Amino acid sequence: MTKVIADMTMSLDGFVADPHDGVEHLFGWYFNGPVAIPSKADRLTFQVSEASAPHLREAFEHLGALVVGRRLFDLTDGWSGRHPMGVPVIVVTHTVPDDWPHDDAPFTFVTEGVGRAIEVAKAIAGDRKWVGIGGTTVAQQCLDLGLLDEIRVALVPVLLGEGIPWFANLKSTPVELGDPRIIAGTGVTHLYCPVRSAG
Amino acid sequence: MTKVIADMTMSLDGFVADPHDGVEHLFGWYFNGPVAIPSKADRLTFQVSEASAPHLREAFEHLGALVVGRRLFDLTDGWSGRHPMGVPVIVVTHTVPDDWPHDDAPFTFVTEGVGRAIEVAKAIAGDRKWVGIGGTTVAQQCLDLGLLDEIRVALVPVLLGEGIPWFANLKSTPVELGDPRIIAGTGVTHLYCPVRSAG
Repeated sequence: MTKVIADMTMSLDGFVADPHDGVEHLFGWYFNGPVAIPSKADRLTFQVSEASAPHLREAFEHLGALVVGRRLFDLTDGWSGRHPMGVPVIVVTHTVPDDWPHDDAPFTFVTEGVGRAIEVAKAIAGDRKWVGIGGTTVAQQCLDLGLLDEIRVALVPVLLGEGIPWFANLKSTPVELGDPRIIAGTGVTHLYCPVRSAG
Repeated sequence: MTKVIADMTMSLDGFVADPHDGVEHLFGWYFNGPVAIPSKADRLTFQVSEASAPHLREAFEHLGALVVGRRLFDLTDGWSGRHPMGVPVIVVTHTVPDDWPHDDAPFTFVTEGVGRAIEVAKAIAGDRKWVGIGGTTVAQQCLDLGLLDEIRVALVPVLLGEGIPWFANLKSTPVELGDPRIIAGTGVTHLYCPVRSAG
């Protein structure tokens, strides 16, 4: 059974980016430690703490596909066709871009909604254990549809005051989670929360 | 040196109450365990997990005074003159209520702002190690004034989707915190974050 996991870095006050989509006060933990873990993108190597290394290695081992929304795809310019995690990316969108110059990249555009995107992602993930959810809107919709198994928060001890919330616009609240598995890193606390039920 | 600590229960998405000030999805950890800890208010005994018990006992031991805003005072009707933590309460307000029927209660009304309220609270706390900050606005103002030493989050694994954020309207962001001391409870994760600096 493939597990669907939403995994993001979040400030203590619940934001995954500042109001201008900046992540400079959040992503420090990817580069503040002695353990080098090469990404699958060109010229990008993570440098994480000993504590965070297994977190990242586990993701590289198990992640089979990543589902993202169109906003994140546009923001990152589709990671130039090569996501740092090295996995196929499924983009939920209303319209397939006709001018994206990476036709050979392992990107699939799904216009039939999040439920269908998860199905496609699971098929693409094959024997891999996880499908990942990137961005905010897709994670929210997965929760509403009861499709999310786990939320992995990389909690950064910073208050941004304002920004992009991870879980806004939920249709059915409260969403009950289980007590997290906790990994205390450097500049980050990893919390793995199983999703129990939507209210 | 008295330590100023803001201590609240918060959902994973950053809310300390639902939009109607309800806390029923947050305060479960106070009553979900085998360890009975009597509060100082009439007829209220906490029943917490083994893990959470030291957290609460430490607060009863060290807390010397509590500073709250007028909104929380009004919401709770001033705890009928007797806060569950059993400590003197300093209320930051524009106007002193003239009809509060608890003249003999250890409540002090301060109309000269948060900075003055902290001074008064420290004096009242005496040899006790901590001054606590209750509610949201006072905590925000303490951060803006550089008066907060530690943020203690009782993080509850639930998503409320909307509600009262703990730290909104901060004047100077980001606020950098240190890595937390972590206590994994039942239905709650306690995170003690030292305040490093305001942005």
